[in-house]
Amino acid sequence: MNSEPAPRSLVVSAPGKVILHGEHAVVHGDVVLVNTAFKSKNSLVAKCLNSALLASVADFDESKSPSAEQLDALREFAGIAAESSAPDSLATLAFLYMCLAISAKYGDVPSVDIIVWSELPTGAGLGSSAAYSVCVAAALLAACGAVACPWTEEELSLINSWAFQGERVIHGNPSGVDNAVGTWGRGPGDDVSLARRVPTLRILLTNTKVPRSTKVLVAGVKDKILKFPAIMNPVLDSINAISQECQSVLEAMPGNPSPEYYPVLEELFDINQHHLNVLGVGHPCLDRLCRVTASHGLHSKLTGAGGGGCGVTLLRPGGAEPPSAATYRDLCACGFECWETNIGAPGVSLHCPSALKAEVLRALGMS
Amino acid sequence: MNSEPAPRSLVVSAPGKVILHGEHAVVHGDVVLVNTAFKSKNSLVAKCLNSALLASVADFDESKSPSAEQLDALREFAGIAAESSAPDSLATLAFLYMCLAISAKYGDVPSVDIIVWSELPTGAGLGSSAAYSVCVAAALLAACGAVACPWTEEELSLINSWAFQGERVIHGNPSGVDNAVGTWGRGPGDDVSLARRVPTLRILLTNTKVPRSTKVLVAGVKDKILKFPAIMNPVLDSINAISQECQSVLEAMPGNPSPEYYPVLEELFDINQHHLNVLGVGHPCLDRLCRVTASHGLHSKLTGAGGGGCGVTLLRPGGAEPPSAATYRDLCACGFECWETNIGAPGVSLHCPSALKAEVLRALGMS
Repeated sequence: MNSEPAPRSLVVSAPGKVILHGEHAVVHGDVVLVNTAFKSKNSLVAKCLNSALLASVADFDESKSPSAEQLDALREFAGIAAESSAPDSLATLAFLYMCLAISAKYGDVPSVDIIVWSELPTGAGLGSSAAYSVCVAAALLAACGAVACPWTEEELSLINSWAFQGERVIHGNPSGVDNAVGTWGRGPGDDVSLARRVPTLRILLTNTKVPRSTKVLVAGVKDKILKFPAIMNPVLDSINAISQECQSVLEAMPGNPSPEYYPVLEELFDINQHHLNVLGVGHPCLDRLCRVTASHGLHSKLTGAGGGGCGVTLLRPGGAEPPSAATYRDLCACGFECWETNIGAPGVSLHCPSALKAEVLRALGMS
Repeated sequence: MNSEPAPRSLVVSAPGKVILHGEHAVVHGDVVLVNTAFKSKNSLVAKCLNSALLASVADFDESKSPSAEQLDALREFAGIAAESSAPDSLATLAFLYMCLAISAKYGDVPSVDIIVWSELPTGAGLGSSAAYSVCVAAALLAACGAVACPWTEEELSLINSWAFQGERVIHGNPSGVDNAVGTWGRGPGDDVSLARRVPTLRILLTNTKVPRSTKVLVAGVKDKILKFPAIMNPVLDSINAISQECQSVLEAMPGNPSPEYYPVLEELFDINQHHLNVLGVGHPCLDRLCRVTASHGLHSKLTGAGGGGCGVTLLRPGGAEPPSAATYRDLCACGFECWETNIGAPGVSLHCPSALKAEVLRALGMS
């Protein structure tokens, strides 16, 4: 029955993440990470076309990390230099690994054609690689019949575990948080019933485009803690308390919150931004972002590793009204790129092509 | 012998204070206030001339607060409205109180002529009223022979207790810290041997000229602590740890410290400034001050109550070299007023007029 399947399209999306509170404190502590998914359009189209990628088979298992030998073989196959860490190379490698491993385990994945389109900037701490890995895993598992639709909780777990393998190919030793957010739209430790109750909040994401190394930033924070433990440890305590306070406020908010809930959320943003500066992960471009949005009555903080990268600005509810054009103009004048989105979006989703926005259809070559 | 004394001049100075670390945390906590005196020229000349001020005598005692009745009587005598809180009115009232009380206790103060000149701005959290009270107390006690010169430790205690009375007239319920700094050049809880070891540090004081109410700021901090105890109390802990760390670093520094000691002091400035912003006592003018000095490689924080007022900038040792003219120019362009001074200066001092700077002599009408 499956020997000559009709070509079909799968359109899959998965959200990235934005850390509202808890960056850096979580690395050194043990308390709640309030990270919430936002809707992205990191989409992948798997079409049944011919491909020669599935020739080699080896010992693939989603419970084991990809081995150095496997990755070397895949690099050679794809003509990727050993030292290459370009996003395209890593994405290709992750796709190849997942494709071959899923084929080996669940039966041949039909030959596929992959088109990826993403609203998420890469390397900005927004979980773009995890959103990509989740989409690829979901599409491949669906293409070979290992998961049906709508996805059950066990099927989501399977998608997540293969996406984690993709993340391992890309990052070496990922925490698993980002692929869980991409899969379920919430962090792995988050209570399902609570996560469902998180209201939809409008945010503005701003990419300062200032590059930074997460590894260097994390090491810098560690050094500061070792240098001034009595000064720094209370700051981590305070950041953890902010995460918990934010979680409580979000849980107490109705689905479509009125403006009266916002001052506390804004105050927590401001406090945490100061704390992140204390940890040494601020940057003049982030100070500038905060100043520009403050001049429009908005509150911002860095999100992710800091030292550049992205900032998140809380937008007050105002129906369909976007933040003022002046806010966009002033942020763009700094050389930043920004876009409005929501937190509290669903996880990995299958889409009906007819329901996609024209912009996405065009990007995927389906219009 | 003293019935017709020859006119003589006493030139007395007392330092103001600059809080390096610990503002606000001290109000709510119980840990070290690292406040160090800096040399000012809040001078007072007491000349033996006629005055009718000493006519009324009442029950004055340096261990008791000035009574409302006493202050009302003095206000009436001086023609000061009951509600007046103008610096001039309060200074006159404090002088009258100290003059009459010291006369009543130690024998008539000879008729005096007072000239006050101060480098310290009033109402800027730099202890100008205490420096004034210390100078007046020292001059009056010296004029009536209650203290000799050089001052012994007991005589300094006497000057301090009368200066505290002056502060009570001006502030109602002062802590006693500022007059102690004015008298001894160090806080009341500071170990004498340690205080003597504090190196001379060059600082730039900048008056943003933005007015603020200490009472409102302190109340705001209290509100924040009550609203977010788990978030705010660790911040107070961290501020106290900064005070202690700074004290340790200062104690370990030689008298004329080399530049290698400065990075830690600068880092502590930066961290504390962020913490003070978290407590809600920052102000855009203070952020601007920090930014302007940072652009010249200098580190600043607010000093005192915040919300405007003064900032302190650490200057690296560079012999007689002042901070760059560009720094002054940029700060003045913000509408700020700034002047360079030292921390770690002596307390109340008697001066030989011939050793005074021409500027001071001119101001005192002695040139």
